[in-house]
Amino acid sequence: MGGEDKVENGHAKKDKEEEEEEMMMTVERVFESKEVPSWRQQLTVRAFVVSFMLSILFSFIVMRLDLTTGIIPSLNVSAGLLGFFFIKTWTKVLEKSGMLQVPFTRQENTVIQTCVVASSGIAFSGGFGSYLFGMSKRIAIQSGSTPGADDYKDPSLSWIIGFLFVVSFLGLLAVVPLRKIMIIDFKLTYPSGTATAHLINSFHMPEGAKLAKKQVKALGKFFSFSFLWGFFQWFYTAADSCGFASFPTLGLKAFENRFYFDFSAMYVGVGMICPYIVNISLLLGGILSWGLMWPLIEKKAGDWYSADLKPSSMHGLQGYKVFISIAMILGDGLYNFCKVLRRTLFGLYHQIRDKNSLPRVVNGSPTESSQLSFDDQRRTSLFLKDQVPTSFAVGGYIVIAIISIITLPHIFHQLKWYHILVMYLAAPTLAFCNAYGCGLTDWSLASTYGKLAIFVIGAWAGASHGGVLAGLAACGVMMNIVSTASDLTQDFKTGYLTLASPRSMFVSQVIGTAMGCVISPCVFWLFYKAFKDLGLSTSAYPAPYASIYRSMAMLAVEGFSSLPKNCLALCYGFFAASIVVNAIRDYVPKKYSRFIPIPMAMAIPFYLGSYFAIDMCVGSLILFLWERMDKTKADAFGPAVASGLICGDGIWTLPSAILALAGVKPPICMKFLSRAANNRVDGFLNSS
Amino acid sequence: MGGEDKVENGHAKKDKEEEEEEMMMTVERVFESKEVPSWRQQLTVRAFVVSFMLSILFSFIVMRLDLTTGIIPSLNVSAGLLGFFFIKTWTKVLEKSGMLQVPFTRQENTVIQTCVVASSGIAFSGGFGSYLFGMSKRIAIQSGSTPGADDYKDPSLSWIIGFLFVVSFLGLLAVVPLRKIMIIDFKLTYPSGTATAHLINSFHMPEGAKLAKKQVKALGKFFSFSFLWGFFQWFYTAADSCGFASFPTLGLKAFENRFYFDFSAMYVGVGMICPYIVNISLLLGGILSWGLMWPLIEKKAGDWYSADLKPSSMHGLQGYKVFISIAMILGDGLYNFCKVLRRTLFGLYHQIRDKNSLPRVVNGSPTESSQLSFDDQRRTSLFLKDQVPTSFAVGGYIVIAIISIITLPHIFHQLKWYHILVMYLAAPTLAFCNAYGCGLTDWSLASTYGKLAIFVIGAWAGASHGGVLAGLAACGVMMNIVSTASDLTQDFKTGYLTLASPRSMFVSQVIGTAMGCVISPCVFWLFYKAFKDLGLSTSAYPAPYASIYRSMAMLAVEGFSSLPKNCLALCYGFFAASIVVNAIRDYVPKKYSRFIPIPMAMAIPFYLGSYFAIDMCVGSLILFLWERMDKTKADAFGPAVASGLICGDGIWTLPSAILALAGVKPPICMKFLSRAANNRVDGFLNSS
Repeated sequence: MGGEDKVENGHAKKDKEEEEEEMMMTVERVFESKEVPSWRQQLTVRAFVVSFMLSILFSFIVMRLDLTTGIIPSLNVSAGLLGFFFIKTWTKVLEKSGMLQVPFTRQENTVIQTCVVASSGIAFSGGFGSYLFGMSKRIAIQSGSTPGADDYKDPSLSWIIGFLFVVSFLGLLAVVPLRKIMIIDFKLTYPSGTATAHLINSFHMPEGAKLAKKQVKALGKFFSFSFLWGFFQWFYTAADSCGFASFPTLGLKAFENRFYFDFSAMYVGVGMICPYIVNISLLLGGILSWGLMWPLIEKKAGDWYSADLKPSSMHGLQGYKVFISIAMILGDGLYNFCKVLRRTLFGLYHQIRDKNSLPRVVNGSPTESSQLSFDDQRRTSLFLKDQVPTSFAVGGYIVIAIISIITLPHIFHQLKWYHILVMYLAAPTLAFCNAYGCGLTDWSLASTYGKLAIFVIGAWAGASHGGVLAGLAACGVMMNIVSTASDLTQDFKTGYLTLASPRSMFVSQVIGTAMGCVISPCVFWLFYKAFKDLGLSTSAYPAPYASIYRSMAMLAVEGFSSLPKNCLALCYGFFAASIVVNAIRDYVPKKYSRFIPIPMAMAIPFYLGSYFAIDMCVGSLILFLWERMDKTKADAFGPAVASGLICGDGIWTLPSAILALAGVKPPICMKFLSRAANNRVDGFLNSS
Repeated sequence: MGGEDKVENGHAKKDKEEEEEEMMMTVERVFESKEVPSWRQQLTVRAFVVSFMLSILFSFIVMRLDLTTGIIPSLNVSAGLLGFFFIKTWTKVLEKSGMLQVPFTRQENTVIQTCVVASSGIAFSGGFGSYLFGMSKRIAIQSGSTPGADDYKDPSLSWIIGFLFVVSFLGLLAVVPLRKIMIIDFKLTYPSGTATAHLINSFHMPEGAKLAKKQVKALGKFFSFSFLWGFFQWFYTAADSCGFASFPTLGLKAFENRFYFDFSAMYVGVGMICPYIVNISLLLGGILSWGLMWPLIEKKAGDWYSADLKPSSMHGLQGYKVFISIAMILGDGLYNFCKVLRRTLFGLYHQIRDKNSLPRVVNGSPTESSQLSFDDQRRTSLFLKDQVPTSFAVGGYIVIAIISIITLPHIFHQLKWYHILVMYLAAPTLAFCNAYGCGLTDWSLASTYGKLAIFVIGAWAGASHGGVLAGLAACGVMMNIVSTASDLTQDFKTGYLTLASPRSMFVSQVIGTAMGCVISPCVFWLFYKAFKDLGLSTSAYPAPYASIYRSMAMLAVEGFSSLPKNCLALCYGFFAASIVVNAIRDYVPKKYSRFIPIPMAMAIPFYLGSYFAIDMCVGSLILFLWERMDKTKADAFGPAVASGLICGDGIWTLPSAILALAGVKPPICMKFLSRAANNRVDGFLNSS
């Protein structure tokens, strides 16, 4: 999936992954007796039915996360768990009725997982919470400008689906020829992919199935709890600022500055998956901004900025919030871009040098000094068996690129054909860089490449030619390509470790991507129609990145002139601080660096406030206490519990959106009033 | 403790107790090496310091339960647990500092437990939630009459303490001579006392201390949780009908009829201690009354009763609620009085017959056919060692009776000296009956004897001579005597099983009773001053039995004339139904009878509504699921968790009362409005 904020997962997990990989060394001995089905047999109808259902589920979850905070944890493990659960139930039913023909294999499980990841990945890279929705008139107005006809494009189901179809397959095709280099030659780690493979393998081992059953049971329990909790909360939200999501848990004063626990099971689950330092960074960011800086800046109203602006105006306090966030995100992005680029080039240099001098590659993978193990031999031989011809991939890329160069300017007339051509020439290289970097660090820089596109194409097109929209559209094209590239190479690694055929993986990815191109826009459309205030900063779905991306595009086109007083200075400061903090994190020993916050994570609450950070810290706290009490159990069931919490609340969004569309309103408002206000209200209610 | 609603504990527990008793047969072998301290050594200063602290804690808990619903579970086990915990902590600290002189023995533990039970028992038998508070002007007005100067007596610290001192020691002295007969000769079971002894013994066994530590830890955890939850809730209760206690968990319509979960940790804990059938009976009673009957009767407004009465008028709907409850309570009381009396007489008859023909007593106790075991020998010899002279007890009884006959008419001039004399002549017999019945069934009929006194003395005094007040005062005298009698014999059983000296027990009971006579009125006083609406049916502390007891006294004095139309017929019906249901419970096989509700329990929600019944059913549900998942753990830790929940929330009442007294009001109101009302309120708030 990748994205702004999933970045640190790999870092924290890496040591564990290496250990696990060592343990998995002899996995194939255990599975030796089991026949590997042919690639056609791996692609079953039931797998795609389940994938379709899970894709809808995950699209809802990703969409909701994207539209509330933009923080999206890696859902690979959840997809693996749920896929296993569905098929297992299904096969059990069939087995009992005597109709079971094909047993459920780990290859089939991988196919499902791949398909779901490909499909729900579109919900993220489609930019419904960022560039794509940032094009809309609503966000444009909210960003303080009165947009010309050239400066906005409201979402509509037809052009979104068309747009996604022409850009989403390019990343997939770009990656296919590089598959063997990444997985076999470079032996890249791909921590998330490896973890998923490990999970799938362990499920299908004889003794693994028992634990899996328990995990699935835990997931189911928390799924139900989370769903029912969402349902229960709904009854008390008769109007805005009603219900648990407006619960001033820490007092009314703290609530005004967005410090409260909002009882969201989803974000508690997300907090349990994200590393501690991410959650702490979010909270620190919230304290620094809403606790300290914004109240101070607010006192300057009338001096630094006009005091009678609307609260949402970009020329007032809102401007400071957005642009300081952008500065930190860009600083962090730039630092990490350079870092990953350096490691990529350095890695490549070694690869090539060693290839020339040695028969085997060296890459810091744990197998480096051992002879090719049984596992590796078997995996490699199967991975190389079913090939997808490079000519097919290259041919496909060129054909789709041509179609897309012709089509895209019809969708966004601000985007010219030469813009697209330039991007498509650069894209395969960038896709390779991102896939390679992600393999090393588990860190997808898709959104950084997207921002690059905003600035380059936005500035190139210029304000008079609808540069804002051109920039955002270019961001979409670029993000889709590089994000799919890293996601799918990740999947190939999973496939490699579970002996799934590359060809069946490729087919599954194609089908999954196609599903995603239809499902994601439909899900977004449901949100858009059901929640009328989607994207407004006071809404339950503020879609923070939509404003941020649009503001970036405006910055690219119009320069710094529109910023309020002293904002630019603050931005420079935070941009530099972001780089410095990152550098310190990298250069001090690990035992200190793990206590240093991550600037990227700190930037999000600058715009949104700390409420979700508090949810996530609650998740961290639960996990921490659980680990203290029973480490083994916490490790085995933590991810299942977290997935349950996320998925249950996430899928509740579906009925809640449907209820909203059908005009069914909740009956009760749970309201929080100060004592004084309550006295007035009681007086009013008694008198009327 | 005893009381209206603790009644069924023993029944459900009895089989378990018998099993446990068998297991305890050889307990004294384990303890053989341990010297039993002399009776003076059993009475340590630290024991009384801890007792004092626990007495305050339990007085708060009992008072709060008494003033909210009047349902008081047996807190013996909690007292044992907490006593152990406090002294253990204390001795550990002393041990570390090298100052520990006397090790902590189970006898000392029993002394603490006895003292706490004696002291907190006064909080119940003092009638702060029933007869004593029923005398006040507030309750008199609420009951619909305009009371003359003779018909009320408002609470005041001085006369309450005086009253308690002159009546509370009588029960204690009445019981002392009967001690040997009940425990040694009759070998009565006393399920609660036996359970407590078992707990104390197991704590002091070498392997028991480990489990005890864990139990105490669980208790501590839930204690803190419950306390903090109470604290958290407080912030949102800026006015009446604010906060979690007014949470329309099941919707607004259900809330109007008092069906909602009110998030009270205390009643969830109480529900975990009470047997399932009690909780289900409560809920059924609530559904029958508030769900069915009251809405139907309400439709008759204007026909059965005048439609423009105040909601609290006894001539309207409120009258039906109160008198139908009374009918059921009286029916149940009468049935059980007859039943226990029959068993008492039957048991006595056998005792005496067998004593004449056989050297050993036979009483259905599990030891009946065995020779006197080692345990029994040792226990009996120690129980008989330190005697309290009968002459002292009889002398004391006469002296206090005389003092009390002189004093009481000064406190209640409606009560004449001959009323009191008659009661004191009858009291020892009734005290014996109650202690004997309680030993057989764990069922204290104290409140039934109290009601008897209301009707007899109330009718005797007559309306013109302040019969209502005379009746209530007589109820107090009678209840104090018979309630203390059964409680303290229960304690003697505990002492017998833990080798505590009867003399040290007696001293502890005297001290405990004295403490209770001061602590309970003070605690009540705090409630009375802090919560100004105490006793009103809309209050958080409605003290339901205060109204019920006063109405009974009025019924005794004035007859049935004041009842609204058809109320008497309904009362007859429910009175009969109450007896019939009880009879069916007794005469069908146990496998069916355990599904038949208890009329006594059903009567309480008739007046109060079902909210606490829902809390208690939640407690049942938690325990049920826990038992299904892990029976051993649920049995070991269930009571500890329940005690923690009850005690934490109970002790929170102390700071909350202090805050109320100091005039500190909570800052926020959590309000629940229907969508329509919310729209109006939002309009009002925006316009003002």
